[in-house]
Amino acid sequence: MKKYQHLINLIEKHDNFLLTAHVNPDGDSIGSLLGLQYLLEPYAQKIDILLADPVPQYLRFLNGANDIYLVNDLPDEIKAEDYDLYFILDCSALDRIGQVKDFFVPEVRKINIDHHSDNSNYGAYNYVDATVSATGELIYNLAVELGSNFQFDFGMAIATAIITDTGNFRYSNTSPETHRIIADMLELGVDTQEIIKNVYETESYSSMKLKGKVLTNLEVTANGQVAWTVVDEPMLAKLGAAWEDTEGLVNYPRSLKGVEVGVLFKGVEPEKTRVSLRSNNYFPVNEFAHQFGGGGHPRAAGCTIQAPLAEAKDTLLEKLQMKLKQIKDD
Amino acid sequence: MKKYQHLINLIEKHDNFLLTAHVNPDGDSIGSLLGLQYLLEPYAQKIDILLADPVPQYLRFLNGANDIYLVNDLPDEIKAEDYDLYFILDCSALDRIGQVKDFFVPEVRKINIDHHSDNSNYGAYNYVDATVSATGELIYNLAVELGSNFQFDFGMAIATAIITDTGNFRYSNTSPETHRIIADMLELGVDTQEIIKNVYETESYSSMKLKGKVLTNLEVTANGQVAWTVVDEPMLAKLGAAWEDTEGLVNYPRSLKGVEVGVLFKGVEPEKTRVSLRSNNYFPVNEFAHQFGGGGHPRAAGCTIQAPLAEAKDTLLEKLQMKLKQIKDD
Repeated sequence: MKKYQHLINLIEKHDNFLLTAHVNPDGDSIGSLLGLQYLLEPYAQKIDILLADPVPQYLRFLNGANDIYLVNDLPDEIKAEDYDLYFILDCSALDRIGQVKDFFVPEVRKINIDHHSDNSNYGAYNYVDATVSATGELIYNLAVELGSNFQFDFGMAIATAIITDTGNFRYSNTSPETHRIIADMLELGVDTQEIIKNVYETESYSSMKLKGKVLTNLEVTANGQVAWTVVDEPMLAKLGAAWEDTEGLVNYPRSLKGVEVGVLFKGVEPEKTRVSLRSNNYFPVNEFAHQFGGGGHPRAAGCTIQAPLAEAKDTLLEKLQMKLKQIKDD
Repeated sequence: MKKYQHLINLIEKHDNFLLTAHVNPDGDSIGSLLGLQYLLEPYAQKIDILLADPVPQYLRFLNGANDIYLVNDLPDEIKAEDYDLYFILDCSALDRIGQVKDFFVPEVRKINIDHHSDNSNYGAYNYVDATVSATGELIYNLAVELGSNFQFDFGMAIATAIITDTGNFRYSNTSPETHRIIADMLELGVDTQEIIKNVYETESYSSMKLKGKVLTNLEVTANGQVAWTVVDEPMLAKLGAAWEDTEGLVNYPRSLKGVEVGVLFKGVEPEKTRVSLRSNNYFPVNEFAHQFGGGGHPRAAGCTIQAPLAEAKDTLLEKLQMKLKQIKDD
């Protein structure tokens, strides 16, 4: 049987679909949502996308991105019970959909489509494959099994999902299949240059200044194995930058010569610090993040620490050094 | 007839090959040279690579990169007349091989393999195809026609050529075929992450700090159409950075939202300023650079001004504003 045969049966049996993805949506979640929406349109009477947080500016070039609903700003016609299937994309746990969870009614079944290895299979149906680079690859595979005619908008959405989640083919999740999907998309006329330009090369003055500041603040510890930098609300305010401008900054400490773990500390509130972790070769940042209640992938993970920036930083860096030493001793 | 059939006949008829490429070698030239060397080894009694300039540090991870000869540092066994075919790769004109040109003897025929559209067909045999992303793609195609068994080292060399000449798949020369070649290479075990890491992500602490400083100094003029930044000897000295760390920095001003022309001013000597120019959509930076005795491509050019940094900057930015206004008025 085909991998998605049962899902295809479900799609054919239902008419009203509500799609969602994780809080602080990124390129893979928005691209997958829009891709799935295009795919389901021929099968749907009613199809909508609903999120807890807004689509970031750098993804608004995608057709349909401005028609996504926000749970805190819902028009009257959106009622959770009017849908007969919920699709939850790119979420390892149900809590990751944020306030959309409270909006959902329990009677409607959830379809969980994701590529995170720590996915908790919270759906009534679970399509989880951690071998693919992006949830967008799973949506592409579903489209192939459905025999869909690929349209330009579908291709742009899926290519955006893949390009962003592989860091433009830089990360180790990039497979031969990843490149082959992009080759097919290019052949259909999808403009990967436009995607790359929107996602990576259209920076605001303030975000560029923020990058400068963050790089100037960069520090190295643990014999050069760990590099880290910080960003907080006063820094952003001073430069006129926003939290979304911090996206991707964690790759700078990671890309320093000899570094195994790169860390970005974000003082999001006086008593709350968000931490992004990246590793290069062997350090399992997701396992490490677990001890702070976080998670993610082996080479890209995150956590939130209920403490001021300086304190969170000292605690985490100390534990990180211990863990690195322990791995070395093993 | 196959595209390379005649070249394959030549390869089978000769035994001693000397390979070269352009001055200031880049990833495409080094990758193509090493790729062709691996390819020809089974057919060769003697095969060597000779260049006018050394292999840059960031490409020395490639196997064989350290065995390339320099024309100014030749061992006794390298005699131009001992070879019976010269391969010239990634060179639009014969002058681009620098001093290797003076070393060559006229009796030996030259095979010109290149992807530059302005190639002057200077070879006895010319294999020029401007539709491919990199000379490395042509070497790959030759390997396919030869029926070669791809080896890891060959794959690493070709993938390096393609990744560097497409800016990691960012530039518009990236085609479906480009991605398919990389997909095949990944399947063979080629580690594109290692390539990307060596080429783009192994920055020194000082070069990262320099990037931070240069971004902090970034300024915008001409109603946001021009962005520019500066770097000089004292800045480098203070951060322990070198001029080669300034490579690529001009892409930051260019990638600012709304900017048409990005400029990097380098105060290389007290009375000498080097200028790198990039444009996004329409401004012909090569034509503009002509008035300062410089040149290049329409979207990437440069010039040298015999004046201190501050003076060169004022002069050039003023002329740039005039030219932008003139284009707008036309």
